[in-house]
Amino acid sequence: MPKVDLDAVTPSNATGYPPPFNQAVAGRWWKRIAPLAGLTEMGASHVTLDPGAWSSQRHWHEDDDELLIMLSGTAVLVEDEGETELRPGDIAAWKKGRGTGHHLINRSDAPCSFVAISAGPGGPGGYSDIDMVWTADGKYVRKDGTPY
Amino acid sequence: MPKVDLDAVTPSNATGYPPPFNQAVAGRWWKRIAPLAGLTEMGASHVTLDPGAWSSQRHWHEDDDELLIMLSGTAVLVEDEGETELRPGDIAAWKKGRGTGHHLINRSDAPCSFVAISAGPGGPGGYSDIDMVWTADGKYVRKDGTPY
Repeated sequence: MPKVDLDAVTPSNATGYPPPFNQAVAGRWWKRIAPLAGLTEMGASHVTLDPGAWSSQRHWHEDDDELLIMLSGTAVLVEDEGETELRPGDIAAWKKGRGTGHHLINRSDAPCSFVAISAGPGGPGGYSDIDMVWTADGKYVRKDGTPY
Repeated sequence: MPKVDLDAVTPSNATGYPPPFNQAVAGRWWKRIAPLAGLTEMGASHVTLDPGAWSSQRHWHEDDDELLIMLSGTAVLVEDEGETELRPGDIAAWKKGRGTGHHLINRSDAPCSFVAISAGPGGPGGYSDIDMVWTADGKYVRKDGTPY
């Protein structure tokens, strides 16, 4: 059935981030939509952020476009250019290869939720605030290439 | 600015559908998000349906995945399998090449809105209820290939 039954999925807060970078996303609960619906041309996740949680470390994708739609609650979008509050119905989008990072922080006292969508070949990416990048095969390493 | 300023865009109800198939989408008002944000790996549109309007003729994509997120109001998702009401926060997704069509109809007495996203190479597609297909180069023709 094409209506996605999110209630049938148990959310996960798993992350591949090495410590201490995993701590900020401990309150990020995600459900993968794309495999549930059989999508192969895009990635899509439903994400809930507990109060204080981050959507990710502040990052960008070299080869993938991203789009985010706020569903409930509020979050602060943090970028080099400043901070923007996102509310239900707001849409944010980042074209591939911007080279400047973004993430959301839930600074409210209630959960917030959004859908995050990505499309592209799935390449490497960078982080704005920490000594980390991810490689084309999805590994987290230091900027000099050494592993964590 | 990655937050998409939809208020800066004038909605359009233009369609390439030949008559009489254009009538059902006269109350469909769309704003393209992808070009506004510089996205090239996915298509994304914000769509408002007036009461009675359809999102499209009932269709499928051969080579593109689609995902839809309801933002406001209600619409009825119509498919071979039946009808499903979609409400704000609901997500529906269609993998490429399903071969059975879908569309939304606003049967309520108020506007509804959603975001529609697609990704893939952009190929041809089919229609469930009418003698029409669209070709890989985006032309609407009869199922025997003759033009309208």
